[in-house]
Amino acid sequence: MYVIIVYDTERCNCVKLHKLLKKHLFWNQNSVFEGVVTTAQFAKIKQLLNEIRAKDSHITFYSFDNEKLLRREEMGEAKGNTSNIL
Amino acid sequence: MYVIIVYDTERCNCVKLHKLLKKHLFWNQNSVFEGVVTTAQFAKIKQLLNEIRAKDSHITFYSFDNEKLLRREEMGEAKGNTSNIL
Repeated sequence: MYVIIVYDTERCNCVKLHKLLKKHLFWNQNSVFEGVVTTAQFAKIKQLLNEIRAKDSHITFYSFDNEKLLRREEMGEAKGNTSNIL
Repeated sequence: MYVIIVYDTERCNCVKLHKLLKKHLFWNQNSVFEGVVTTAQFAKIKQLLNEIRAKDSHITFYSFDNEKLLRREEMGEAKGNTSNIL
């Protein structure tokens, strides 16, 4: 399946979430990750995120079976998928 | 169609983008809006965003024809869809 994960959290927690998510997904832009995962991988990512996320954080998970159903457009220069920000 | 719009931008520009997007879409969480729009509305939103966005901003537009194809899960307390933050 294809997933998009977006999160709001405090700065120090942000680093933890970023490090976890970049192991599994493509980093699109600040606090937004996406990519192809299996159902089991997705469940594991959600479990791990729930363990390390700050209490007042909020995370949204969008998922769909077929990436081809999704159109994706960008405006501006992408900063994601680089490792020099954190 | 159903759209999800996520943006990275500088703080003062963030207010402008937020104000524009909340006229048309549901505010999910910081820098993330989503909702049902027509093709014409979507084109207009993109045009207006392009006019007011900061040079170094980055915006991603995800869209698909049928909202039912999308699964949506949340973790934590939602802060979106309230008007008292800006």
